[in-house]
Amino acid sequence: MGYKLLTAGLILFLVAGKGLEGRSQTAEDSAFLRRLADIVLTDGKAYEDLRTLTKQVGGRLSGSPGYYKAEVWGQKAFQDAHADKVWLQECMVPHWVRGGKDSASFVAGGAGSSGGGVAGKRTGLDILTLGNSVGTGAKGIMAPVLLIHSFEELEQRKDEVKGKIVFYNYVFNPKFVETFRSYGDAVRYRVFGPSQAAKYGALAVLVRSMSHSVDNNPHTGALVYNDSFPKVPAAAVGLYDADKLADAIGRGGDVRVFLRTLARMLPDTVAHNVIGELKGSLSPEQFITVGGHLDSWDPAEGAMDDGTGCVQAIEVLRALKAAGYVPKHTIRAVLFANEENGGRGGEKYMEEAKAKGERHLFALESDAGGFTPRSFSLSLSDQQLAAAQPWIRLLQPYGVYEFAKGGGGADVEPMEKLGVVAGELRPDSQRYFDYHHSRNDVLEVVNKREMELGALNMAALIYLVDKYGWGQ
Amino acid sequence: MGYKLLTAGLILFLVAGKGLEGRSQTAEDSAFLRRLADIVLTDGKAYEDLRTLTKQVGGRLSGSPGYYKAEVWGQKAFQDAHADKVWLQECMVPHWVRGGKDSASFVAGGAGSSGGGVAGKRTGLDILTLGNSVGTGAKGIMAPVLLIHSFEELEQRKDEVKGKIVFYNYVFNPKFVETFRSYGDAVRYRVFGPSQAAKYGALAVLVRSMSHSVDNNPHTGALVYNDSFPKVPAAAVGLYDADKLADAIGRGGDVRVFLRTLARMLPDTVAHNVIGELKGSLSPEQFITVGGHLDSWDPAEGAMDDGTGCVQAIEVLRALKAAGYVPKHTIRAVLFANEENGGRGGEKYMEEAKAKGERHLFALESDAGGFTPRSFSLSLSDQQLAAAQPWIRLLQPYGVYEFAKGGGGADVEPMEKLGVVAGELRPDSQRYFDYHHSRNDVLEVVNKREMELGALNMAALIYLVDKYGWGQ
Repeated sequence: MGYKLLTAGLILFLVAGKGLEGRSQTAEDSAFLRRLADIVLTDGKAYEDLRTLTKQVGGRLSGSPGYYKAEVWGQKAFQDAHADKVWLQECMVPHWVRGGKDSASFVAGGAGSSGGGVAGKRTGLDILTLGNSVGTGAKGIMAPVLLIHSFEELEQRKDEVKGKIVFYNYVFNPKFVETFRSYGDAVRYRVFGPSQAAKYGALAVLVRSMSHSVDNNPHTGALVYNDSFPKVPAAAVGLYDADKLADAIGRGGDVRVFLRTLARMLPDTVAHNVIGELKGSLSPEQFITVGGHLDSWDPAEGAMDDGTGCVQAIEVLRALKAAGYVPKHTIRAVLFANEENGGRGGEKYMEEAKAKGERHLFALESDAGGFTPRSFSLSLSDQQLAAAQPWIRLLQPYGVYEFAKGGGGADVEPMEKLGVVAGELRPDSQRYFDYHHSRNDVLEVVNKREMELGALNMAALIYLVDKYGWGQ
Repeated sequence: MGYKLLTAGLILFLVAGKGLEGRSQTAEDSAFLRRLADIVLTDGKAYEDLRTLTKQVGGRLSGSPGYYKAEVWGQKAFQDAHADKVWLQECMVPHWVRGGKDSASFVAGGAGSSGGGVAGKRTGLDILTLGNSVGTGAKGIMAPVLLIHSFEELEQRKDEVKGKIVFYNYVFNPKFVETFRSYGDAVRYRVFGPSQAAKYGALAVLVRSMSHSVDNNPHTGALVYNDSFPKVPAAAVGLYDADKLADAIGRGGDVRVFLRTLARMLPDTVAHNVIGELKGSLSPEQFITVGGHLDSWDPAEGAMDDGTGCVQAIEVLRALKAAGYVPKHTIRAVLFANEENGGRGGEKYMEEAKAKGERHLFALESDAGGFTPRSFSLSLSDQQLAAAQPWIRLLQPYGVYEFAKGGGGADVEPMEKLGVVAGELRPDSQRYFDYHHSRNDVLEVVNKREMELGALNMAALIYLVDKYGWGQ
């Protein structure tokens, strides 16, 4: 557009900023949120923190050297943000290693495929071994492939599975507007598919990547073995290559897949949640937690998952302090360990809070990417949700227009067992699965301002909860 | 995030999809919007249309060969979308040419800057000549530079301007959450700055780019000369280089800028609005218009500005027809000519509608980028706005949660003079000015699904207006 549109922009802004009314909303709150916004949008440090985390630390899977570098990075970042206290909370984490370069290909041969024009030709597949997977051994596995579209089809064809490599080609459903719904719908094939196939004698598993991106980058993620069945190697395939393999199988004839991965699980090892605190002035023994997870998958920089959540949590502390806010309750920012392949950091945080009998008002996480905020998902009663609604008018000028009844992020979800209100920032979800668990989850895909708006809305909600609580 | 979050995603979706009530909302409407969504999200053609427009046509400034290629592209796209009628509407447009590669640099010398360590060193500046600018001649201009931060400062220092190159270094304000506000605030230096400086004897003008991106790409755009003063050449400077130049000036001493541009304005030439129609069944002589602008700046592919608006408008026709909807009124998708440096296409469309006495119910434009939709800005009376509010419940599952009182996009704004309700899609604005009028406005910065959601919400609103009107 040219320059004529500025009038529309102006009017929109005035509408968005229009008068506030309702409970727990004062001109003071409105002015404080504006001050927070000015600090985060003009003097924010989150993007520079993300730059050092992604470019100087990089990938940081639990137990990897990168994770321990990230722990050091996190402590320094909290100190630079002027946290009153910075400390480490120890926990044991799984230690899975990729072990080397993943490799896969397929060969289509035999009469049936003679028309396909690929008879005997070896075609490479861009794959990433799934987290927690066992390896194939250095020689790899070569076996006929069985194309499966659903667990129902697997049941119907279970007699064909033995000795094969099962390829789950379940498509990430584009009809869901909220992309986490597509993920919830498809991810069971990645998480449970390997053991389901092993149950019927599969030698290995390939799974179509959990994404509707327009590229061929494979998307890894954790699998969970069922100990009743043999552990078989499993890998995610890029979307173009998944289609290529499915087409070759569709042409009929013998299609054989080669898979080689050196992945293995090592004994559990020590890691830490990295925690920064702002001391409460009125009830320092009562806590509000805000966090993201520090670990990431190994092939990428973990920018969106969950570097942005970490630097946003740090920015919440920094901005509240920079704005001169003295919290009633102790506000803790937590960089959780091991969300990706175990969730041990979140469990440990809950267990220690329980053991110490800590009282927690709220536990908020950002782990859905550093995109423009739209909503907060909160584990509130209908009564509490209604009581909090007037706050929407305060947040809407900064992007959040909805409180949705729901759960917290994976790391704070355990706190719900202690009766704590848990929540998660829900930014726009359209781009998340383009990058999720993929090698293109790098700094360059993060927009500075979108991430800053997320941090700003998190700081604003923490401020409101600290000041007013949830009501009864 | 891992796989635990899917529960939250699930609940959110149910909340977003919760029961509809209020005027003009029937289960039939809800079901039809769902059918539209399925068509656009699973079988949409907008992204492929955008690929051919950006990669096979590319830049398409008014009067350039690219623009005429784009007219051919547009007619074919409408035919492929099964428009009932496709036609061209002729208009005269300005024909400005860049004329060759822009070039600029600065040299800091003299005693004052001896401490700066750059004395005599020539430093290149990444610039783009502003649209409609005159050139410097082949030899270029070398002159001392005057750093100016505002028009107020220009007035105070007007005696220093003669014989200098004025450098407006007004910073794009990051405090506005709605980035079009920052644009509205800063763009006057690009549009009016050159003549304001020429009024006091400036030889040329440099202006800081209208952006808060994290790169150095210059952002061009139209200037408007005041015929009372000499026409001086003007160019936009990338943000890093603007800071570099300002720093050198700040170190004191003589800083001289070299500027060379071969830009020139040629006589007006013929171009066309490209129009596709779905014939109305009940009142074919009454019209609803939806559009974007076909022209773009020359250094880029014009993906976000406004390729996405064009393919979204085409997708509106295609999806409504594919869904089997028979409109009451004639629905016209218009690819407007010359939005960027003249607005002649929009003016022509209005003039012809006026001359023919056409009755128009609504004119909607998408010219704020192919990002996830959040709002529609509409030139409605308070009464009409209130009457339309219940539609929000129908649109919210697809992203639009607000109708804001405002104007239409630049191309449909002229229709307001005929008493027509004008509107514009208001997607998330955070990334727009990273790409706007810059060489990085390319296909790769467009997310397929975000753009599709924009097209979907546009089609949904067009459907509702066609079916129910605006009320009185």
